[in-house]
Amino acid sequence: MKVCFFKLHGWLKVKKSINEQLKPLFYPKSVAVIGASNNPAKWGFSIFNDLLAKGFKGDIYPVNKNEETISGMNCYKSVKDILEPVDLAVIAVPVEVVPQIMGECVEKGVKTAVVITAGFGEAGGEGEKLEREVVRIARQGGIRFVGPNCFGIINPSSNLSTTGIMSLYITPYVPKGSIAFITQSGNLGSFMLRLAFERGFGISKFVSSGNEADLHFEDYLEYMAEDPDTKVIIGYVEELRESRRFFEMAKKITEKPIVILKAGRTKTGRKAAKAHTGALVGSDDIYDACFKQAGVIRVREIQDLFDVAVTLVSQPLPKGNRVGIVTGGGGFGVVAADMCEELGLEISQLTQETMQKLNQRLPPRWSHSNPVDMVGTMEYAYVCIGTLLKDENVDSVLAISSVGSPSKIFDQYPPALRNQLAKFAEMMVEWESTRGVMGLIERIKKYEKPVILAAPPTSREDSEAIREFEKNGIIVYPTPERAIRILAYITKYAENKKRKSGA
Amino acid sequence: MKVCFFKLHGWLKVKKSINEQLKPLFYPKSVAVIGASNNPAKWGFSIFNDLLAKGFKGDIYPVNKNEETISGMNCYKSVKDILEPVDLAVIAVPVEVVPQIMGECVEKGVKTAVVITAGFGEAGGEGEKLEREVVRIARQGGIRFVGPNCFGIINPSSNLSTTGIMSLYITPYVPKGSIAFITQSGNLGSFMLRLAFERGFGISKFVSSGNEADLHFEDYLEYMAEDPDTKVIIGYVEELRESRRFFEMAKKITEKPIVILKAGRTKTGRKAAKAHTGALVGSDDIYDACFKQAGVIRVREIQDLFDVAVTLVSQPLPKGNRVGIVTGGGGFGVVAADMCEELGLEISQLTQETMQKLNQRLPPRWSHSNPVDMVGTMEYAYVCIGTLLKDENVDSVLAISSVGSPSKIFDQYPPALRNQLAKFAEMMVEWESTRGVMGLIERIKKYEKPVILAAPPTSREDSEAIREFEKNGIIVYPTPERAIRILAYITKYAENKKRKSGA
Repeated sequence: MKVCFFKLHGWLKVKKSINEQLKPLFYPKSVAVIGASNNPAKWGFSIFNDLLAKGFKGDIYPVNKNEETISGMNCYKSVKDILEPVDLAVIAVPVEVVPQIMGECVEKGVKTAVVITAGFGEAGGEGEKLEREVVRIARQGGIRFVGPNCFGIINPSSNLSTTGIMSLYITPYVPKGSIAFITQSGNLGSFMLRLAFERGFGISKFVSSGNEADLHFEDYLEYMAEDPDTKVIIGYVEELRESRRFFEMAKKITEKPIVILKAGRTKTGRKAAKAHTGALVGSDDIYDACFKQAGVIRVREIQDLFDVAVTLVSQPLPKGNRVGIVTGGGGFGVVAADMCEELGLEISQLTQETMQKLNQRLPPRWSHSNPVDMVGTMEYAYVCIGTLLKDENVDSVLAISSVGSPSKIFDQYPPALRNQLAKFAEMMVEWESTRGVMGLIERIKKYEKPVILAAPPTSREDSEAIREFEKNGIIVYPTPERAIRILAYITKYAENKKRKSGA
Repeated sequence: MKVCFFKLHGWLKVKKSINEQLKPLFYPKSVAVIGASNNPAKWGFSIFNDLLAKGFKGDIYPVNKNEETISGMNCYKSVKDILEPVDLAVIAVPVEVVPQIMGECVEKGVKTAVVITAGFGEAGGEGEKLEREVVRIARQGGIRFVGPNCFGIINPSSNLSTTGIMSLYITPYVPKGSIAFITQSGNLGSFMLRLAFERGFGISKFVSSGNEADLHFEDYLEYMAEDPDTKVIIGYVEELRESRRFFEMAKKITEKPIVILKAGRTKTGRKAAKAHTGALVGSDDIYDACFKQAGVIRVREIQDLFDVAVTLVSQPLPKGNRVGIVTGGGGFGVVAADMCEELGLEISQLTQETMQKLNQRLPPRWSHSNPVDMVGTMEYAYVCIGTLLKDENVDSVLAISSVGSPSKIFDQYPPALRNQLAKFAEMMVEWESTRGVMGLIERIKKYEKPVILAAPPTSREDSEAIREFEKNGIIVYPTPERAIRILAYITKYAENKKRKSGA
C-alpha cells in the first residue's frame, strides 16, 4: 500500500500534509505576479496593483517579458530571473503560454501557484489538453496550484490577495475575521466579500477554486479544518471531485460548522453547471442525504450562506428548539409563529415566573403568551428580552422591533412644527435610553443563549444602531422570516452536533 | 328580499355604495381629532401633530374637554361645539369613553370615524361589550368607522394621515403612488410604509383595519377595486370576516392584482393570531384553494408583499414563463437555473438569431447557452439584455450584475497608489458609460417585457444607480433568488389572468 501511495503521489518528494503544502500559498514570503501589466484592461494590472494596495507583507515581483518596469517597480523577464526564493506565483498570461510558464516556475523552484487564466477544461477541446499538460508539469515539479479559471485566494493575515479586480473593486482592505470561504464561483465569492465588507464582518481565508485541476475543494476543506483563524467554513459547490473524501472529512470536523450551498439541485441547474465549470453533477438526493449524515448545514440561498456563517461565529448555539419571541406588534408575532412551526422550531411555554414578571412590568394589554406582544410599547424590549433569556424553557430569543432612535426624522419637518415635535423627540430619546442599545447588548451577553434581532428596513439612523449590534455579534435581520430561517439552521446544527458527540 | 335587506342595513338611511360611504373617510373636507393632546406620551399628540405636519388639505379641529388650545390652535370641548360640518372624526380617548364620544359624533352628524383606541374585542370581557355598544351607536347614527385598535388610514392625495406616531416617526410626507395596502396588523403596515419611503415607492391608500368591528377588509377591498389611484391591492390578513364575499369579489377584480399575506397557516400561527386580534382562523387548506381559484397572489413572506407589488406596478406582465438570464458570473446562473425550475419557470431556448448575435458580440468564452454567462465582462450587459428582449422565445429577462460605477472606492486607497489606480478607474468609468444606466433603462422600456435586476449588496455609490433604476420602474433585488421568486409570482399571476379572461 505504501509503495502504491508513493507511486501515485511521487511528485511529492516527501509526503507533506496539506497544511504544510498550502502554507506557502496562504503565507508566502514572496509573490511573483507573472503577467503583471501596466495596461488597466489586463488582469495582471489589477492583480499586481491590488497586491500593492492591500499592503502585502512580503516581497512582490512583477514578471512580464515585454516590460522594463511595472507600477514603477523593476520588472523581470522571467520568474527564473528573480534571485530570491519565490513561494507563490500568480499566473495571468494567455492560456497557451501557461504550460511554459509553469515549467519555468518548476525550474525556479516556486512552491505554489495560482492560475488565474481561463480557457482550460471549461472550454473543452484544446483547453482540456492544455489543462492536463499544466497539471503534469506542476506535479512533476512539486508545485501545488489553485485554479485555473479562478480569482485565487485572499488571506487578510498576510494582507495577501490574488483576486485583483474582485477585491480592488470592493475594498481597500479585507477585514480579518473567522469565516473561511471556499467557492467554485468567483462571482459568488465577490458577492460574499461585498456582504462582509458592507456589514463589517471579516474572513479568515478565501479561495476561488476555479476548475480545481490540481487542488480540490476537499484539500481546502482539510486545510481550513486545521486553520487556527477559521471558526466556520462556508462553501459554494457545483461538483465535489472527491465526494467520499469530503463526507468522511465532514463527519470528523465536529468543532467547526460547515455550511454549503450546493447548486445543481435541478436538471436545469445541472445543465447550467455543465456550461459554467464543466461540472458533471450527480443526483441531488444522494448529496442531500450525505450532507445530512455528515452534519453539514446545507442552505438553499446565497444570502443564507453568509447569514448562517455570521450568526454561527458570533452567537452561542441553542441547547434546544424552544424559541422565545418578543415583538412590538402582534402581526409580526403571528408571522413568526407560522414560520417557526414550518421550520421545526417550538414556541416556548413560558414559566410561571416569567409570566408573573411580564405581568408586573408590561401594560395590561400585552399578549399574555409567547410570542410576547408588547403592544407597541418598545420601551419594554430590554425587560422582555432579559426575562425570556432567564426562562429555563427558552433556548433562543428572537426580538422583532425597530431599533435606533427615530428622533432625527423630525429635522425634516417644517420649522414651524419643530418646536412642538421637539417634545416628542425628547420622549423618544428617553425611551431609547431606557432600552438603550449598549445596555441591551451587555444584558444579552450575560446569557449563553442565542439572540437574534429582526428590525424593519433601515433608515440612516437605524443603520448606526444595527452596526453597533452586529459589531457585538448580535445579528440584525430585516424581516422576522429571515431571522427564523437562520435560527432554524443553527438549531438543527446544534441538535446534530449533540447527536454526533453523543454517538 | 329588498325589505329584508333594508331591515339588516336600516342604519343606512339610503343604501349608498361603499365608494360613496367611504369618500368622506379618504377625502374628508374636515377632520376632528377627539383626544388631541399637548402631552407627547398620548396618541392624540402624535395624531394631531402628524396631521399638521403632513399638511392636510382640509380643516382640522382639535377636541379635548380639558384643554383650551392644542399646538396653538383653539381647542373644542366636544365635537358638538364645532360649527362647521365634520366629515371624519379620529377618536383617541380612553376605551370606556368611546361609546359616549361616538354618540356625540352621531349628534353632530359626523360622517365617518377612525377609532384608534384599543382594549375592545381583542381584550375580551368588558372590551367586547364596549365594542358591540360602539357599533350599535355608530350604525344607528349612520357612521361607518375604521378600527377600533388600529392606526387608521393614510391618503397621500389629501395629505391625510390618522396614523400618528407610525408615519410621524418614519417620514415627513407619504409618497403618492398606486399601491393600496390594507392590513390587519399596524406594525406590518409600518414596515411597508418604511420600505416604501426608503425605496422611493408610493402608496395610493393605506388602511390599518384593527378589529374591523364595523368596516371589514372586504369593504376596503371593494373600495380599492374602484379607486382610480390604485393599481395593485396588497393585504395582510389574519381572518376574513366575510370570506365568501372576499372570494366572490376577488374573482371579479380582474384588472388589479390582489396580493395577500395570509397568516395563521399553522396551528402555532393560529394560536398567536387569536392572542393578537382575537381572530378565529379556519383551516389553511381551504383558504389556499380559494386564493388560487380567485386568482389572488398569495405570498409567504412580508418582504414578498412589497416586492411583488412594486414589480407589478412598474413592469409589464410576462406573456409566458420563459426566462432569459444574463449574468456576469456562471455561479449565479446555476443558482438561478435551479430556482427557476423549482418555481415553475422555464429557461428559454434562445433563437438561432440571438445565438448568432451573441456569438458576434461576446468574447468567445461566453456560455453559449441560456443563462448567458458574459464571463465577467460586465460591459456587455447592455447588448445582452437588449438581445434577449428581442428574442421571441423570451418572455422575461433577469439580469444578474453589479450596477453602478465602482470607481469611487479608489479614493480610499493610499495616495501613492491613486495615480496608478486612476487609469483603472477611468477604464471602469468607460465601461460604465457603455452599459450606462440611463441607456439601459431606455432600451428596456422599448420592449413590453418585464426586466428584473439582481445586484449584489449595495455600496453607497451603487445605491444611486439602484435608485435610478427603481425610479424608472426597474426593480433591483439583492439576490438572484429573491428576483426569481418575484418573477415566479407575477408569471403565475399573468397565466391565471389569461385563463380567467379566456374562460
